Amino acid sequence: MSLLIKAANNLRHPFAPGVKCMSVTFQGFHLKHAAQINSCQHQQYKRQFSGKTAKPPKSNTTMYTLFTVGCITMGYFVFDNMEKLKRQEKSIKNTEVIKTPKVEDKVTSGDDYKQWHSTQRQDLPTFKLDEIQKHNSLENGVWVTYGIGVYDITDFIPKHPGSDKIMLGAGSAIDPFWAIYQQHNTQEILTMLEKYRIGNISPEDEVATDDMGSPWAHEPKRHPLLRPTSERPFNAEPPITILADNFYTPNEFFYVRNHLPVPVIDEKTYELEVEIETKKAAAKSTQKVLTLADIKALPKHTVTAAVMCGGNRRSEMTSVKSVKGLSWGAGAVGNAKWSGARLRDVLLAMGVQANEDLHVILEGADLDPTSSPYGASIPLSKALDERGDVILAYEMNDKPLNRDHGFPIRVVVPGTVGARNVKWLTRIAVAEHESNSHWQQNDYKGFSPSTDWDTVDFTKSPAIQAMPVTSAICTPSAGDKVKVTKDGFVEVRGYAWSGGGRRIVRVDITADKGKSWHVATLEQENEPDGRHYGWSLWTARIPVDAKHKGEEVEIWSKAVDSAYNVQPESFENIWNLRGVLSNAYHRVKILLN
Amino acid sequence: MSLLIKAANNLRHPFAPGVKCMSVTFQGFHLKHAAQINSCQHQQYKRQFSGKTAKPPKSNTTMYTLFTVGCITMGYFVFDNMEKLKRQEKSIKNTEVIKTPKVEDKVTSGDDYKQWHSTQRQDLPTFKLDEIQKHNSLENGVWVTYGIGVYDITDFIPKHPGSDKIMLGAGSAIDPFWAIYQQHNTQEILTMLEKYRIGNISPEDEVATDDMGSPWAHEPKRHPLLRPTSERPFNAEPPITILADNFYTPNEFFYVRNHLPVPVIDEKTYELEVEIETKKAAAKSTQKVLTLADIKALPKHTVTAAVMCGGNRRSEMTSVKSVKGLSWGAGAVGNAKWSGARLRDVLLAMGVQANEDLHVILEGADLDPTSSPYGASIPLSKALDERGDVILAYEMNDKPLNRDHGFPIRVVVPGTVGARNVKWLTRIAVAEHESNSHWQQNDYKGFSPSTDWDTVDFTKSPAIQAMPVTSAICTPSAGDKVKVTKDGFVEVRGYAWSGGGRRIVRVDITADKGKSWHVATLEQENEPDGRHYGWSLWTARIPVDAKHKGEEVEIWSKAVDSAYNVQPESFENIWNLRGVLSNAYHRVKILLN
Repeated sequence: MSLLIKAANNLRHPFAPGVKCMSVTFQGFHLKHAAQINSCQHQQYKRQFSGKTAKPPKSNTTMYTLFTVGCITMGYFVFDNMEKLKRQEKSIKNTEVIKTPKVEDKVTSGDDYKQWHSTQRQDLPTFKLDEIQKHNSLENGVWVTYGIGVYDITDFIPKHPGSDKIMLGAGSAIDPFWAIYQQHNTQEILTMLEKYRIGNISPEDEVATDDMGSPWAHEPKRHPLLRPTSERPFNAEPPITILADNFYTPNEFFYVRNHLPVPVIDEKTYELEVEIETKKAAAKSTQKVLTLADIKALPKHTVTAAVMCGGNRRSEMTSVKSVKGLSWGAGAVGNAKWSGARLRDVLLAMGVQANEDLHVILEGADLDPTSSPYGASIPLSKALDERGDVILAYEMNDKPLNRDHGFPIRVVVPGTVGARNVKWLTRIAVAEHESNSHWQQNDYKGFSPSTDWDTVDFTKSPAIQAMPVTSAICTPSAGDKVKVTKDGFVEVRGYAWSGGGRRIVRVDITADKGKSWHVATLEQENEPDGRHYGWSLWTARIPVDAKHKGEEVEIWSKAVDSAYNVQPESFENIWNLRGVLSNAYHRVKILLN
Repeated sequence: MSLLIKAANNLRHPFAPGVKCMSVTFQGFHLKHAAQINSCQHQQYKRQFSGKTAKPPKSNTTMYTLFTVGCITMGYFVFDNMEKLKRQEKSIKNTEVIKTPKVEDKVTSGDDYKQWHSTQRQDLPTFKLDEIQKHNSLENGVWVTYGIGVYDITDFIPKHPGSDKIMLGAGSAIDPFWAIYQQHNTQEILTMLEKYRIGNISPEDEVATDDMGSPWAHEPKRHPLLRPTSERPFNAEPPITILADNFYTPNEFFYVRNHLPVPVIDEKTYELEVEIETKKAAAKSTQKVLTLADIKALPKHTVTAAVMCGGNRRSEMTSVKSVKGLSWGAGAVGNAKWSGARLRDVLLAMGVQANEDLHVILEGADLDPTSSPYGASIPLSKALDERGDVILAYEMNDKPLNRDHGFPIRVVVPGTVGARNVKWLTRIAVAEHESNSHWQQNDYKGFSPSTDWDTVDFTKSPAIQAMPVTSAICTPSAGDKVKVTKDGFVEVRGYAWSGGGRRIVRVDITADKGKSWHVATLEQENEPDGRHYGWSLWTARIPVDAKHKGEEVEIWSKAVDSAYNVQPESFENIWNLRGVLSNAYHRVKILLN
């Protein structure tokens, strides 16, 4: 039995609460046809991560990558419609069939589109599962089911952004894949899907949903101040007006970026697997399992580090041209004091030697419908660097991590994009390759402004690690009427940060489009350059001409880091299709009062 | 006797060729009054660097700083006028006195201003040295001599950019200080000086120049391709059209940035002093002297590193608003394979322990008129970092260093501004403070665009270490008529680089002001990020509309490094009074042919 399974057995599977996760996979869904495909894929996943082989066979790796990516690419919508589905299933059972309008008529009919896939179409025939399953290739046509709908998506295959990866769902249900990514549950996509509808699932093959449960049933309670950009998975930021009030962002206001449901972990049985997958690391021991007590017994190290989402300030980039991703404001960042064991200590204790070719793969307990965990990786050099300050954190601002921030253990990789700071850490592997996860391979990368979804090749850009220099104006907010002081000043406050431990050395503010720049006063820790992982708060008093009272003024902020890198001026020339690395000048228009 | 003196005894003093330097100081000048002040200051310098005290008394340090900075601040002009001076001295002796026009008339009279200070003014009285020396305070008035001129600069003192530091020259000659910095030998400054003229030095106090020698007499021969931005000290860059032709810049074309005359060093007697000045380093031994053979006996380490002047591309910044500094094009950079001993190995052998508070001071054999060496420092953390790759280089592209590049030893600090890559290395010191040199403290720092010479406070900005991301178009050149290929393309080539070991991950080129960007093909080493110190050459084929033939097109280049830092768009918002860090988009206008 793989170590992953051992570790994971201590967790409750988000899709089957109360049941050991690896042994059940998609039984939790009781989607019979879904279970068929998934148990097969899950075997594949288990083989991939069985931990017996230092180098997993390449074909497995490729298959796994294809599969994971495929699932995620396909995985857009549903699961929160399960309650509605339940109700509607009952309706169907009671033969109170809702008359479904034709697709062409539907677009304008309010929220109805959310129920189409769970509604019988009397104008279309009924298919049995074994018939549907035959349509699993381009030769035989590609059919999928969603809810009780049957869809022939053969014509859509070449148009799918993930190209042939969609084929992994051919002949079966896409429900489990679409269960997670509710931000894509859009009228546009559901309307498109309904256009491909060819029928209904035969009543005897319909899903029994009574004991289905919800992967979202165990989400933690959140502070009402957090403003969600998506509810499921939960992603939320605080209003940025409060960000600059605290050098250490209070845990309850700290932005949350979850990619999957929050796992339920019992700290008493929690285990962290560490595996050295390659001989190149020259380690003395290649496997280790650490309990929470083991981790806490290691020397405790504290580091102040801002953690920032790769998509922070995406909404500003979107204003140039739309991008794919959550519409973050400038609040997808927080600064905290993190305490835990050094990853370096864990690896050195196993005898791991420095090697520029190696990576440390980090996996969380948050699982997607295929039971694949959230995953990311960092270079081994960062993990081993004493000045890298990578820790297995169990405390955030002197309190135990809360569930949204990775209880009981998250990796904190200071200076590195949030996505690599893996939460609910269950597995660490030293390997010759980066994480194969979607988030490492096909997300969180930058591209040229002229690269679009037709031309993008994710293998051509490196996964974001250290983040570029940025800053934001926290107060005043856009549109605020701002009182000019008697001596003719406006006070402006904000944050600035740069990745890679680069200290902020200056923040310049202008209220006259760069004719005059005013150097802000910084509040920051006195950490050395290269190891300055916390953010800097700043305050500037900008002189404004009293005669402009009542007029609009645009304030810009521009930060400079210790390598004298500076924010670019505008978003036009850094635009990228994923809307990451959105670090141009922050510009806020206010009214002088 | 200090170790420095021991080391320096093996060098020929640039101002007294053939004479052991420490024992003579300014005898080489035979400027009697200059020798008086300088021998005193030199004692102070010797005390400062006597190496007996781990912590030099603060007052000494301050005095030394004041003195060095003062000398340099004052040190603007002359020495290459010595030949002329010689001729004129003879004229004076022969009483062929040149009639000097009044200052007001002189401004328009060609190059005459260069001879004013070596010309008797018959309209003014004559002063004896002991009279001049009394005027050494604000109370008694501040007089200085330059050539045979006597000047009352009392009124100028408050206007002097270096404020009271000018007082170090009060009552004596400024010739030795102005001997080095010939780029400041401007009509503006000499005219200003002449306005303060009050007389002539008494004939019996005039300088005997016959055996004065020239600190520039031993400059090496340079390749005619190098285009000087200043002759003395020699600063020159190759035409950038040839830069992109070689991944390793040929040594003879490699830009030269000298701050002082090139020292003459005998490799047989060369010695490098290493001193651990602070107990915080916890070193086992605190002093060591290494011969060239000792250094070569250490494990040889090779690193490819681009070295770039902090002022590279300054001329582009100047086009926005003038700055102080040599007018570099984009050729003040080169890429080479450097080989030598690791600085880390030297320090570890002495038992030096990592400490975030400490610095490594690096000093060259190139001396200013006060016998102060060129100096710089880097953080100890960089020196000790295995991935920092700091070496004591004796080879450049597999050949021994040539004299312009630091023969026999220069420090190569990969990823760090050229100014810290100290040439002709004679002393290394681990200390609690940065180098006190002018170049570390009052130069090579960045400031806000609104900071000017009235408001600048050099203590407020950190010394440049790692450099920001940059790129330049090497071909075509501005104004070139460029042939459009049959299939409608223009080929563009250039270099890109970022400091701190950050790999270049993308270079974007546009020929339509950013409407479309084209990703260039990179030629670079496969070194890991954080340790990618070499530059990247790039080539892009840009489609151009055939109907624009005969028209002007502006090409822009923009590089992105592994932290996804990107060049700023324009110079307006990164302008700084020293014209350093000039890394905005490179823009070249060409004519389509």
